[in-house]
Amino acid sequence: MIRKDESAPLGDMSAEEFRRSGHQLIDWIADYLNEMERYPVLSRCRPGDVRRQIPGAPPAQAESMDRILADIDRVILPGITHWNHPSFHSYFSITGSGPGILGELVSAALNVNGMLWRTSPAATELEEAVLDWLRQMLGLPEQFWGIIYDTASISTFHALAAARQSLQGWDSRKLGLCGMNRRLRAYASEQAHSSVEKAALALGIGLEGVRKIGVDNEFRMRPDLLHQAIEDDLRAGWWPFCVTATVGTTSTTSVDPVAEIAPICRKFGLWLHVDGAYGGPAAVVPELKWVLDGCEAADSIVVNPHKWLFTPIDCSVFYCSRPEVLREAFSLVPEYLKSSESATNFMDYGIQLGRRFRALKLWMVIRYFGVAGIAARIRAHVSWASELAGWIDDDPEFERLAPVPFSTVCFRAVPKGLDGQPSEVVDRFNEDLIEAINRQGEIFVSHTRLRGRFTIRLAIGNIKTTRAHIVKAWEVIRRQCSRLLEERG
Amino acid sequence: MIRKDESAPLGDMSAEEFRRSGHQLIDWIADYLNEMERYPVLSRCRPGDVRRQIPGAPPAQAESMDRILADIDRVILPGITHWNHPSFHSYFSITGSGPGILGELVSAALNVNGMLWRTSPAATELEEAVLDWLRQMLGLPEQFWGIIYDTASISTFHALAAARQSLQGWDSRKLGLCGMNRRLRAYASEQAHSSVEKAALALGIGLEGVRKIGVDNEFRMRPDLLHQAIEDDLRAGWWPFCVTATVGTTSTTSVDPVAEIAPICRKFGLWLHVDGAYGGPAAVVPELKWVLDGCEAADSIVVNPHKWLFTPIDCSVFYCSRPEVLREAFSLVPEYLKSSESATNFMDYGIQLGRRFRALKLWMVIRYFGVAGIAARIRAHVSWASELAGWIDDDPEFERLAPVPFSTVCFRAVPKGLDGQPSEVVDRFNEDLIEAINRQGEIFVSHTRLRGRFTIRLAIGNIKTTRAHIVKAWEVIRRQCSRLLEERG
Repeated sequence: MIRKDESAPLGDMSAEEFRRSGHQLIDWIADYLNEMERYPVLSRCRPGDVRRQIPGAPPAQAESMDRILADIDRVILPGITHWNHPSFHSYFSITGSGPGILGELVSAALNVNGMLWRTSPAATELEEAVLDWLRQMLGLPEQFWGIIYDTASISTFHALAAARQSLQGWDSRKLGLCGMNRRLRAYASEQAHSSVEKAALALGIGLEGVRKIGVDNEFRMRPDLLHQAIEDDLRAGWWPFCVTATVGTTSTTSVDPVAEIAPICRKFGLWLHVDGAYGGPAAVVPELKWVLDGCEAADSIVVNPHKWLFTPIDCSVFYCSRPEVLREAFSLVPEYLKSSESATNFMDYGIQLGRRFRALKLWMVIRYFGVAGIAARIRAHVSWASELAGWIDDDPEFERLAPVPFSTVCFRAVPKGLDGQPSEVVDRFNEDLIEAINRQGEIFVSHTRLRGRFTIRLAIGNIKTTRAHIVKAWEVIRRQCSRLLEERG
Repeated sequence: MIRKDESAPLGDMSAEEFRRSGHQLIDWIADYLNEMERYPVLSRCRPGDVRRQIPGAPPAQAESMDRILADIDRVILPGITHWNHPSFHSYFSITGSGPGILGELVSAALNVNGMLWRTSPAATELEEAVLDWLRQMLGLPEQFWGIIYDTASISTFHALAAARQSLQGWDSRKLGLCGMNRRLRAYASEQAHSSVEKAALALGIGLEGVRKIGVDNEFRMRPDLLHQAIEDDLRAGWWPFCVTATVGTTSTTSVDPVAEIAPICRKFGLWLHVDGAYGGPAAVVPELKWVLDGCEAADSIVVNPHKWLFTPIDCSVFYCSRPEVLREAFSLVPEYLKSSESATNFMDYGIQLGRRFRALKLWMVIRYFGVAGIAARIRAHVSWASELAGWIDDDPEFERLAPVPFSTVCFRAVPKGLDGQPSEVVDRFNEDLIEAINRQGEIFVSHTRLRGRFTIRLAIGNIKTTRAHIVKAWEVIRRQCSRLLEERG
């Protein structure tokens, strides 16, 4: 029997306290965004440093907001790697912009679940409207219907799920894949993101169900090898069903030749998915529209506003020219979710039932900066990356390792002192270099491996980054390189 | 060639403007939360009403924040179904509480992706710490390791994925499911959430791979029928691999007897997943701890703080006593994500690479209300639901259709005027009644179907709900029922 406990104070934080703490936090954030450069980009914590400061048991009684906010400074902030820092050049550099942060704030307050049209018509209709805006900004044709998922991993998962659903002669919705007497095979380049393989793991296709296609000397998928692989697989009894082309790969931002891949997909009846999670937004810039060349023939495309469209994580946009296939793959409406309106219910198009109101922040970001403003910022990032590539090319102690079509530069140090040394020594030097750069704290860069060589990657994408930050980054890199050489004696 | 456009203003919103707009929004939200009851709970929009007010093309030039914020009032708000309203009694009633909203605000500003430990040690370590708090609050034993996903759909998907990975004698990671000569089968009650079937769709198990088990007269899975089904399936050549027990089903909040289901899973070597997305949080209340009875034997459990723990959507907690299996199912580390620290990298435990810093809001909610405060609120919801059940039982014009173990009440009107009418007429009357109640706008309730009967569902769970709101809800329901009877003449 439930106890009645009429004495306990119930309800939410009072409006007055919300106002007070809210104003305090807005000021805190304004200061944080403004003075972020006093923090090291990469957190200096060691494993356990944060956890050690958190009590082992939850608080039995309520604590004051002042105390909680003080702990954000004391406990949390030292353990933050500052993704919103203008000198964050790791992975892909992203942005929680002002209007985007405020959009998240409103979404959290409304706290709607946009699973059905009726559960907030504005969530569904704003998503439809703003994704049509973005479609126009990217120059994609009208047949592309859009939906917002959380991450590109989930978008690509839905692409492969739809591809699986589109198979002729096998009802995977009803039967699954067990008992199928041919094995499915998906294709992507050696440079494709690991999310393609994660999707294959998820969908019951398995890692052997993904065949990696070789790339040319600029890290782009080779259509001739794709064609050959599909033919070979058909002969060997595989069931080819999907190709993922990447426009802006993770390591080098290379762009697969979609216009040449599309006819191969058409010939063999394969679903063509385009991973433009990073590269897609570049198409907002008129002179970079080529990044989506050939995509009008795609079955699906993923573009991440939380990567290079100044929108806080998470927000991944999935465009699909055959949304009815996606719907066949996932629609399931139990009685308690039936509704009578003739309108889009986004829950029918994916695995997740709960849907945050993510369109709101994207709408605010696009309006606040305007299409021209977004294009100008992306254009600037690309031009700074191009400048940096030039500096690297002009410096005999460094070597660029990939073309720079967008805002990410791949390179390594090849100082004279290492002339004639085995490649492991050069790799090791660059590993030490990246470690020294990141430990120093002014900038944060990441690495990859290209043709077996350890490679430093510097990505530009934060909205607060200026040309001066790139000048500084290059200085930091060269300074640490010199220091490291001196230490080696 | 990229154009240089040095003239355009770049960068983010200024700190001053962020401060000004942020303060404005905090006041707007404080007012919204405080005065929400002047809005109809269910939006009165008709399809197209919102979209019609949004320009067909994106703005070429930047717009002012004032204009954007004005449009939130003008365009967005009328299209909102107010999930954060104290009289939202539909589906499951949820809460974006004050500390939770502020937590989301901080997360959006930090904008970290907690994919790796190093990409923000605080994101990983706070997640570990706060999930250990919640584990203690729920009374789960120490072997349960936790991770935060976005939704229960994704948590249950990971449960079934881990179950699939745990199969002996078949390497689904490498091979997928194509070519498997036995078909997998998962089990859940007729009352289980549709996310179990969505997971089966996703994972390549197919809808036929989910067998629904009958329930007793209180809508709880019958262990005897489960046992029989597994035996029958084994004889028929199926490969049983997973049982999902639900503690707090969506329609009636019935609680499957986990303590009786667990030995059956053990006997046949099946993964036991417990869906406590809604019901789990009740275990924070000492006298409701029984809801998780038997769960110590589970392989995985999902509990959603965004349902009944006052945390804004999205936040779904997944506990697993065999995290190494989850890791085997999903770990894939490309070169560009390799890191050297010996610490948890949550990206290894799921399909999503991008991970918002969701632990922050949960930490703030638990601290702000305290364990006792959270328990008091849940306890109050349960006691009001119990009162409402009593009023329904005492009213000859209404009939309760399920037990009320928690805060959700299932009932229908059976007015004297309909005595002796066929069941379709009673169903139709209740459909009209729910439509009238929701259109009226003071409260929002949803429906389900129980033993073929159209059923009204009233869920209590918002933190601002008081006993007075339940009194009002009951008045609204009776008033609309009388009005409808009068109209029928």
